[in-house]
Parts: sequence; C-alpha cells; structure tokens
Amino acid sequence: MTKKKPLTGSHVVGIDLGGTKILAAVVDADGHIVSEAKVKTRPEKGPDAVMERMAEAAREAVQRLKLSWNAIRGVGVGAPGPVDPDAGVVYHTPNLPGWEEVPLASRLSESLGVPVFLENDVNLGTLGEYMLGAGQGTKDMVGIFVGTGIGGGLILAGKLHSGYRHAAAEIGHMILLADGPVCGCGKRGCAEALASRTAIERDIWLGIGAERKSLIPQLTGGDPERLTSGVLAQAMREGDPLVSEIVARAQWHLGLLTASIVNLVDPEMIVFGGGLIEALGDEFLQPIRVTARQYFIQQAGADQVRIVATKLGDHAVVLGAAALARQEAK
Amino acid sequence: MTKKKPLTGSHVVGIDLGGTKILAAVVDADGHIVSEAKVKTRPEKGPDAVMERMAEAAREAVQRLKLSWNAIRGVGVGAPGPVDPDAGVVYHTPNLPGWEEVPLASRLSESLGVPVFLENDVNLGTLGEYMLGAGQGTKDMVGIFVGTGIGGGLILAGKLHSGYRHAAAEIGHMILLADGPVCGCGKRGCAEALASRTAIERDIWLGIGAERKSLIPQLTGGDPERLTSGVLAQAMREGDPLVSEIVARAQWHLGLLTASIVNLVDPEMIVFGGGLIEALGDEFLQPIRVTARQYFIQQAGADQVRIVATKLGDHAVVLGAAALARQEAK
Repeated sequence: MTKKKPLTGSHVVGIDLGGTKILAAVVDADGHIVSEAKVKTRPEKGPDAVMERMAEAAREAVQRLKLSWNAIRGVGVGAPGPVDPDAGVVYHTPNLPGWEEVPLASRLSESLGVPVFLENDVNLGTLGEYMLGAGQGTKDMVGIFVGTGIGGGLILAGKLHSGYRHAAAEIGHMILLADGPVCGCGKRGCAEALASRTAIERDIWLGIGAERKSLIPQLTGGDPERLTSGVLAQAMREGDPLVSEIVARAQWHLGLLTASIVNLVDPEMIVFGGGLIEALGDEFLQPIRVTARQYFIQQAGADQVRIVATKLGDHAVVLGAAALARQEAK
Repeated sequence: MTKKKPLTGSHVVGIDLGGTKILAAVVDADGHIVSEAKVKTRPEKGPDAVMERMAEAAREAVQRLKLSWNAIRGVGVGAPGPVDPDAGVVYHTPNLPGWEEVPLASRLSESLGVPVFLENDVNLGTLGEYMLGAGQGTKDMVGIFVGTGIGGGLILAGKLHSGYRHAAAEIGHMILLADGPVCGCGKRGCAEALASRTAIERDIWLGIGAERKSLIPQLTGGDPERLTSGVLAQAMREGDPLVSEIVARAQWHLGLLTASIVNLVDPEMIVFGGGLIEALGDEFLQPIRVTARQYFIQQAGADQVRIVATKLGDHAVVLGAAALARQEAK
C-alpha cells in the first residue's frame, strides 16, 4: 500500500466486489452511508478492467458528495472467495473467472492514492453487523449468511478471526450429516449441501419432478430463475406442503449448525443474513432457535445466546469494508 | 481470593481434581514438575471434605520438596464439568455428587493463604499442551480428549477461549450425524455418541451380543471392566474384524469432527489426547488425518494444519493448572 499523504481524512470508502455488480459507499465518522455508486462488474473483461471499474465506482461515490479525495482516509474491499488480508491478495474465486492471486489492495491503492484493505466478503458482512448492525455491543459474534452457499464470519474478543491460513468461518462446510448429500465442494453432508438456497431448490425441483404437489410450478411458470426468496415465502404462507417440508428441514439443519457452532465457540450472538431471512424475518428464524437451543450442551443461559436477523441487509458488506478501512488506516 | 502476602513465590501448584483421585504437583519457573502428591477424592464425603483433601495434597507435595509455602505464588485447579472461572465456582458436575455452585477458589485460597484459580479440566489439559507440550509455539490450537466422553479446549490468539457463558469447546457435542445415535446428553448424532470410548464399547458389545466374531470375549473374559485401551489396541493389532471396523468408524467420525472445527476456526494445530491415543499413538491418528484433510474446505496449506498426539499425557491437566496459576497470580 502507498501512503502519499498523512491519513487525516474523516471519511472512508467501502467496496463490495460481487460477481455481477460493484457497490461503493462513502461512510462518515458515525458509520453512516452518505453516498453510493453502483457499476456492473463485467468479470469477463478480466482483473485489470474490474479493478479500474472499482476505482471508478469509488471516485463516483465521492464526487457525488462533492467531497475532495483528501477527505478519504482509506478504502476497504470485500471480495468473494478466499483472500490473504495481510498481503491484500485475492486467490482463485469461482465468481471472478481468471483471478489468480491478484494483488488487489496494492493495485487499487496505487490507482486511488490511499491505503486499501482487503477481506473476504462474508467476513466483512459479519464485521459490518458487529460494528454497525445487529451485533453492536457484543464481543463474540458469529455471522451466518444463507444464499447460494452458506458463508460466515467469526468475531472473537471484538476482532475478526481470520484463522491460521485465513480460512476460518467456512461455516457452510461444517459437517452435519456424515455421508449425507454431495456438496458443491465434492464432500458429503456439509451444512451447505443441506440448508443453502441451492439445497432447498434442488429438493423442490426433485419433488416436483416426482410429481409431488406444490404451488411452485404455477408461481414460477416452471422457470428456476423465477424461484426467488419472495416466491418461497409466498408458497410457505399459502401452505405449500412440499416447500414447507423442505424449508423446515433446512431450518432444522440450520438449528443443528447453530448448536455445533455455539457448543464450540459459545458466542453471545448469532446473526443470520441472506435472501430467505430478509424475506421471512423472524418467521424463518424461530424454528432455528427452537432446534439450536435444545442442542446447546450447556443449558444454563441457553436463551442468553441471541439468534437474530441481519440489520444491515444488502449493505452489510460495504459497511464492514468501511469499518475495516477505519480500523486499519491509522 | 485472599492475598495475605506479596506474590513473590517462584513456584506454583497445579491440582487435577478427578472423580476418583486428586493429583497435586509443584511446578518450577521452567514448567517442570518438581514434586507430586496423590490422594483419593472420596466424593461421597461431600465438597468440604474434598476441598480439605485438595489442600492436604497441595501441602504434601510442597513438604516433600522441603519448600516453604512462601515459595508458592498461587494454585491452579482443574475441575470436571462446568465452572465459572471468574467467580471461581464449580457448578453441578456428574462426577462429584452434591457439588452445586461450590465457591472452590475462595475456599481453597482461605485454607492455603495464596490465590487460587479455577478452570474446567479439559480446558486446562489444552492449556498445558499449549504452554508446555505439543502446542508450544502455536497461537491458535485445539485440544480434543477422547475418553468416556469427548472434551476439548480452544486456544485462540494465545489465550484459553472460555466463551460468553464459559461453555466453549464442548467439542463432544458438535453434531456430526443429524438424527444419529442418542448421546448421553439426550440429543442425537453428537461426536461423543459416535466416537467416544463409550460409543466404541457400546458398538463392540452390541456386535458380540449379535454373535459377530471378535477376540474381545476371550481377551476380557466377557468383563466390560477389562476392556481397556490396551486391550483394544491388542485386538486391533491382531486383526480383530469387529474392533477394527468399529474403531475405524470412530476414527472417520473424529476426522469429520476435526474438519468441522478446522473449517470454523482454522487453527494451527489439533492435539489429540486420551487413552486410545496414548495406547496407539500415530497409528490411531493417521486415519483421522487422512479424513480430516480431505474435508478441509480450503485445500491450500491443508498439510500445514498439524494433527498430533498429546505430549504431556496424564500430566496435561496439572501442568495446565500450574500454567494458569502462573499467568494469573500477578
């Protein structure tokens, strides 16, 4: 990272690098987003073009605010897949084809003239919830994000726990059902193979293929692209027997996952995020709580471990990235 | 805790409070045991009598060394079951009937005239291995002790991680097989119900009851008391088909347990302890390594995560208790 000027800026920029879009946000000293810019990622154009678009988005968000770049203390970036936060390097990631050990932090820092800090996106989503969302005031907190996969982050003693190989909080690959269904990772019985959106959708279409009754063909016209979290929520509320059973089974596995994590780490709070949680809220979390609390080995204070929904939703990653920049740009 | 004199002592005392025996050891500034004393616990006589016997054992170990009590800086105690380390209180524990919220640290401190510090015994076994055994030089380390149950400890950033409710590292109750065999805790599919000595013995006697071939009836005379770790090791080495299959299944589950822990916490080292590990050593660990490393989600550096056997064996808890006293008695 280059330090071309003393770090006096009052604002930081958070960037959420996704496979389809890049979101940049300027965040003030109180942790509020004061300006945003969104551009398409176009990952097919390769790392150099994507990094140029990231810099553009950051500059655009700052310009909209009519703020000078001197006001920017640093930039935090959340990238999908494994990264080395110390070296600022993005490893191979399935969402960004062609990215192999890209020194994103130093390259972006050269381009923008301020320090740039890198982390995995779900780790930053967790940091965002910890610093500015549902986890404020806790010391040990776990984030679980249920989407296409299941990702997570671990806050221990007030700090993001990155792990010896920067490989911590791969929560989706804790094993819940030895010899269970095959996971995207090629192994069996991982949480992700049992309770992710992908697992839920797989089981729904298998059920429909076997002619089980469901509202889903009618609600989606049979198009898997139209099976959104909103449609799943609607089907559940209308009592769809297939969807209700499959979602309940996913919730049961998420309860066991929560219990396994609590029995190992004993955090103060578990924050759940992802489309289904945002669509269904507490209705989705309540069965998870019931299962998890039964499986806590220490029953004393079982209800003190709070299991709650994300407060920041889609903005968790940019806010976490901004928080990282503020922590690190000293 | 009472502080009757300035804490200038060069030595500390570690006490391992077990259900059948109490072991006290005097440990010098280099972490060596220089004197020991062992007495029977006699838990049926109640907490007061047991605490008096703990004090006796500590005094005896010091007297044997012809050391003055002024040389003792503090005492660390490892107790079975859940404790509150901050308050120095032992909660209900199945191994010590009649113990309900006993203020062990303050009572023993009054009796001995030095500060007394309390922790759960498997946590201290892990701390012992970290400070003085296999884990020396690491920063993040996990201890897994396979006995009647499966216990463990978590060292994160060089410190014992106790958890929000002092309930961390209940490794035996991470769920590995949703809806699997019933565990002693009343839930299903916990690691302890699949891979503890109790689970292995259960499956062996069930197999024998169903007339499967095994050397065990001959080696033990059919007496479950004589099915020691040594006998299991002998049966395996002689190619006993029933024992080999059941131990291999336990090892497979211990591999999945290791992978679940690594995928969540990403430590530098996993230290295994307990009778079977002491009897079989690396022969027992190798299949666990093979399974675990396949299930690590981040394959980069998979072989950097060391999976090793305890170095301190039976003395891990007293040495961990001594290390705790040295850390805390400032």
